[in-house]
Amino acid sequence: MKQMEDYLPIVGEKVVYDIYKKASKLYDKHLVHVNSTFIGGGVAEILNKLVPLTNDTGLDAGWRVLHGNLEFYDITKKMHNALQGSTDSLKEEDKKTYLGVNNAFASYTHFDHDCIVIHDPQPLSLIKYINKRQPWIWRCHIDLTNPNPEFWNFIKPFILRYDLMIVSSEQYKKDDIPVEQRVIQPAIDPLAPKNIALSEQRCKDILKEAGIPTDKPIITQVSRMDKWKDPEGLLKIFEKVKKKVDCRLLYTYNLATDDPEGVDIFNRIKQSVRDLHFKDDILFVLGNNDYLVNAIQTFSDVVIQKSIREGFCLCVTEAMWKGTPVVASNVGGIPVQIDDGDNGYLFKPDDYQGFADSIIELLKNKRLAQTIGKSGRDKIKQKFLLPRLLKDYLTIMYDVLK
Amino acid sequence: MKQMEDYLPIVGEKVVYDIYKKASKLYDKHLVHVNSTFIGGGVAEILNKLVPLTNDTGLDAGWRVLHGNLEFYDITKKMHNALQGSTDSLKEEDKKTYLGVNNAFASYTHFDHDCIVIHDPQPLSLIKYINKRQPWIWRCHIDLTNPNPEFWNFIKPFILRYDLMIVSSEQYKKDDIPVEQRVIQPAIDPLAPKNIALSEQRCKDILKEAGIPTDKPIITQVSRMDKWKDPEGLLKIFEKVKKKVDCRLLYTYNLATDDPEGVDIFNRIKQSVRDLHFKDDILFVLGNNDYLVNAIQTFSDVVIQKSIREGFCLCVTEAMWKGTPVVASNVGGIPVQIDDGDNGYLFKPDDYQGFADSIIELLKNKRLAQTIGKSGRDKIKQKFLLPRLLKDYLTIMYDVLK
Repeated sequence: MKQMEDYLPIVGEKVVYDIYKKASKLYDKHLVHVNSTFIGGGVAEILNKLVPLTNDTGLDAGWRVLHGNLEFYDITKKMHNALQGSTDSLKEEDKKTYLGVNNAFASYTHFDHDCIVIHDPQPLSLIKYINKRQPWIWRCHIDLTNPNPEFWNFIKPFILRYDLMIVSSEQYKKDDIPVEQRVIQPAIDPLAPKNIALSEQRCKDILKEAGIPTDKPIITQVSRMDKWKDPEGLLKIFEKVKKKVDCRLLYTYNLATDDPEGVDIFNRIKQSVRDLHFKDDILFVLGNNDYLVNAIQTFSDVVIQKSIREGFCLCVTEAMWKGTPVVASNVGGIPVQIDDGDNGYLFKPDDYQGFADSIIELLKNKRLAQTIGKSGRDKIKQKFLLPRLLKDYLTIMYDVLK
Repeated sequence: MKQMEDYLPIVGEKVVYDIYKKASKLYDKHLVHVNSTFIGGGVAEILNKLVPLTNDTGLDAGWRVLHGNLEFYDITKKMHNALQGSTDSLKEEDKKTYLGVNNAFASYTHFDHDCIVIHDPQPLSLIKYINKRQPWIWRCHIDLTNPNPEFWNFIKPFILRYDLMIVSSEQYKKDDIPVEQRVIQPAIDPLAPKNIALSEQRCKDILKEAGIPTDKPIITQVSRMDKWKDPEGLLKIFEKVKKKVDCRLLYTYNLATDDPEGVDIFNRIKQSVRDLHFKDDILFVLGNNDYLVNAIQTFSDVVIQKSIREGFCLCVTEAMWKGTPVVASNVGGIPVQIDDGDNGYLFKPDDYQGFADSIIELLKNKRLAQTIGKSGRDKIKQKFLLPRLLKDYLTIMYDVLK
């Protein structure tokens, strides 16, 4: 487990010292984070690092995972999609299951903490079933720009009970709800196996062991198998690139326990690849090993993120941190990270030609790729590493408890 | 969610009143259960019912799930098998991963409870990393009759730290450890969707919807895909039965998030079925819906449990509760439930002919099947329902806290 000292060489003394000072005003305070999975997905990844590190600064921080079931995850996945704008309708039965799981969990969850931080919609309605005796914060990681009204109206009454709502970007703040809203941008842990520096040789060894050939340039997307990650669009862009440069596409996917849709989408994509004449240059890699994902992101020539919607998109953060140039959709938290043309490239999700041209240029012009990559790494170092995130949480904790 | 009153019609006033009296001596006490999964497997199923019901009696009871990862589950599955007797060796790296997960979880887990109940080996070593300030109980659900010594010696030092160890059967008590040991037999929840009474027509409807034909007698095994459930042996017995009675075998399997072996075994079994001439009468049914499992157990003519090792085997309890005659291996907790020839039949795991003959007789002799089934239901009603389990826990809680 990492301690604050371990971050000194990366973020410097001032940042670490500021964290200690903020924490010292919160000694004896006990907060708890609640989300809905401890394996897979960006939120679990953040909590896995943030929570132990919070404890290292002198506060008590807990982490509970809501106990759902397969039916519940089906519904909350639908809810997640609908809150990001998909058209769907919320059945009465679904509401009952959603509330039932929260109610059951509440029946054996006893919060004597000083502050409760609820992540995303899955455990949002817990607040309805627990005798609230402390500040509750709803930390929403998803893009609420254009939510499906039926779902938004269903969850709004629960949000009203909260003392504070945290979103990932200024543009996600909602006008139609009176709850105080703040922004915390997510972050990655530079010391995690997924993000520590790997030498070129080590990367080659890891890729070789995973059966990934390195004799052609590599373009990579790392993402869940999810319609919002637009795997179909990704294939179309790769087709355009492939006409100009002989290269390979790695789709590095992962599956989360709370994402039952993934397998269906994966099967559909594999089916559609089968008919392509360059199918042998499209590799699907299960990113279930952090060192493997790290090696892929580090070794790739270009990382692409062809999303239609994003909360923040930590995959972009990770790739930039490794100095790999990123070409991405101009959605969600991505433009917060990438300054177009300076430390990466942004395109509208439907601008396939723009994506392709940019990737082709980066594959052909090594110097450009290096410059863009280095600027990307600098941006992440300044703004999107774990100690900054911890500091933001401590600031908010202090504000709600003072 | 169920309350104590709901059990009155099944277990009677005396049992419910006894529970209230025991609970009244424990008001204000706060206990917490810790296991390693909230979906799949018998332990999760019990806690899912036991914990809310404990809260209904006036105590505070919590339930935490250890946050593992895929590597950890691979190791703890191996550990589970080895503690049940399989030959395997424990790598230093495995120990490190096992302890690392427990250590990390301990770093953000703050127990201010009056009593901690740790289930099975996965979170056993938590006690090493947490400042112990209350009684800790290790509740071991597995068959420790003949553990692999290397693994047993690895976990023994952790068990020594505990105040009490609970096993599922007298014969699982260990001579070579000084920790006090008690027996608690598991139980099923008669009000859960998996166990409530379903009419014959309802069963037929559910089976029809699941695509399970009902035109031939049905023999069923419900179990994880696991070598200890001996799916190969099951097929051999079915082959013998099939020669005498035209019937169908349902293998109703389920997959747990902490059981990565399941998929491999499933694929192997499907492969071996492919060559059988009666393969069309062997159906694999994913038991991911409690009503479906209930309907299958209720509607089946015979339930078989061809296990080589068992902790207690709640699948047998469930089938007996439904009045379905059970033919099972004489291992683990099964002989505690079945009195051979009276309320079911027991055979040595390698006595394929005995299994087959007994099943054939039950398929042919309807009256015998009914008598055995009814006796089975009576036995479960008296000894293996949830309120009795709750009472046992309250007794132990009182004893360790007095």
